[in-house]
Amino acid sequence: MMVIDKLIDRIIELKNPTVIGLDPWLDMVPSHILKEAYETYGKTLKGAAMAFLRFNKEIIDEVCEIVPAVKPQIAMYEQYGADGIAAYIETIKYAKTKGLFVIGDVKRGDIGSTAEAYSNGHIGEVVVDGVNFDVFGSDFITVNPYLGFDAIEPFLNNCKINNRGLFVLVKTSNKGCGDFQDLVVGDTTVYEIIGCSVAKWGKDLIGKHGFSSICAVVGATHPEQAKKLRALMPNTFFLIPGYGAQGGTAKDLSVCFNVKGLGGIVNSSRGITAAYKTPKYNVFSEKEHAKAARQAALDMKADLLNHIKIN
Amino acid sequence: MMVIDKLIDRIIELKNPTVIGLDPWLDMVPSHILKEAYETYGKTLKGAAMAFLRFNKEIIDEVCEIVPAVKPQIAMYEQYGADGIAAYIETIKYAKTKGLFVIGDVKRGDIGSTAEAYSNGHIGEVVVDGVNFDVFGSDFITVNPYLGFDAIEPFLNNCKINNRGLFVLVKTSNKGCGDFQDLVVGDTTVYEIIGCSVAKWGKDLIGKHGFSSICAVVGATHPEQAKKLRALMPNTFFLIPGYGAQGGTAKDLSVCFNVKGLGGIVNSSRGITAAYKTPKYNVFSEKEHAKAARQAALDMKADLLNHIKIN
Repeated sequence: MMVIDKLIDRIIELKNPTVIGLDPWLDMVPSHILKEAYETYGKTLKGAAMAFLRFNKEIIDEVCEIVPAVKPQIAMYEQYGADGIAAYIETIKYAKTKGLFVIGDVKRGDIGSTAEAYSNGHIGEVVVDGVNFDVFGSDFITVNPYLGFDAIEPFLNNCKINNRGLFVLVKTSNKGCGDFQDLVVGDTTVYEIIGCSVAKWGKDLIGKHGFSSICAVVGATHPEQAKKLRALMPNTFFLIPGYGAQGGTAKDLSVCFNVKGLGGIVNSSRGITAAYKTPKYNVFSEKEHAKAARQAALDMKADLLNHIKIN
Repeated sequence: MMVIDKLIDRIIELKNPTVIGLDPWLDMVPSHILKEAYETYGKTLKGAAMAFLRFNKEIIDEVCEIVPAVKPQIAMYEQYGADGIAAYIETIKYAKTKGLFVIGDVKRGDIGSTAEAYSNGHIGEVVVDGVNFDVFGSDFITVNPYLGFDAIEPFLNNCKINNRGLFVLVKTSNKGCGDFQDLVVGDTTVYEIIGCSVAKWGKDLIGKHGFSSICAVVGATHPEQAKKLRALMPNTFFLIPGYGAQGGTAKDLSVCFNVKGLGGIVNSSRGITAAYKTPKYNVFSEKEHAKAARQAALDMKADLLNHIKIN
């Protein structure tokens, strides 16, 4: 079965179109986890990385039967060098053993041969003198289209060969997203042109639910633009950032979903993983951070289902 | 002294505006290096990574007094996971001990807080409970502007604080670069608009040679467009890919340079690092791969200086 169909099946099974962003900062990690990591590994890059890994694992254990997917943001790990990357990879592996789909949020984009290296590492295989390695093992990754089609093609190839998926940046959720994405080209815009390209790139990988494994990132913070993209790209599944902290509401992003309640997966990162630090969840102690994350995930699900009816 | 001034001083000292791209594939690495790496570390990710590291070090030893800079492409290393990233970091460290400037070719781009993590890791410092680490230690990195100004700002901050530089993708050298970069916006184009933004972002970091530490990637494969950008961005230094294998000639790219022979640095990757595999350099044996690289670097310098007069 195509990876996008498996993901959507799981969304329907759980009645939950949520992905939890695993984007830790050290100030989000409970002090008992930090203390133990620093005692074992020192106040080192490895100490930071191992604290992240334990933090993630505790959250994954609590949410893996509530949400279909997690989205680790590689930047948070990469900043700690090789130890950070090891923790990123271990997080992916652990999430997969718990039945979660993994969207590696890497936003890579480079010319053909370089894109091939990224693609082989993250969603394919690398070969060392005849020995094959599935290094990162993500089900999906995010990619940046600014370099054009030949920079995306190596990723499309691995999606086909290895049954993986992509989320191509089309319209992001950040404050400055309009700077270049909204530039007007004739009677359309850069982001709409890229959106149409993504739809075209994905037309050979459309599954049983009517959505392609080649998906798009479409932020929740600009509902009018999301609505336009939904109309332009009826077969493209959306990763929707910007819910919660960035200001996007369940009502805003509901325009991305069809009458069956399908069409996208909504990200929340620190709104869930750092819930224990907020007044709303202060019934949970610091040591119960993962239970707070679980409750926040359940609350987010309820909020989304007020506006998205999954049949 | 500003990092861009130091780089340009070294270009003038060596009379050589070349950067060597350290973008290895295993099939470029001489068999004796591979053999020893596999014997020591197995046919593993670490074996591949350590082969790259030795390959790079041998090349760096031969070219460090000829060229001012190297540009490791992180994708080549990242595909091998944590071991690959360790080899990437060791390559940077080794190059710097040999007096080379390092342009980390990472093409990162993400929303504000995520960009901050990338920026701290690659051109800044990360802090683990009061202990500071300069993790990657690049002098410059490449970044992708598609997400807009707030995705670039954290990098600009580290450039100011830590005296580092950026090369922002403006016009790349690949076949599909025109797909979105050349879209027409009124009487201009996406790449020109981004070019003007880069010039604006760099206006506070212009050094004694008249160029800013906030630089641009401008490919050699489209000389008419490079000429336009040179006129639009007189204070922006260019990283120029596309020379050689991709078809850009010294004459083509000479439009990026001013009357003093300054204005950019020209990249060549496998044209130099895999020179020993080509008929032109078959006087060098496989074991002499680094001497072939040295000769190819000298030949490239001579070719560039036929069209660029550094006073």
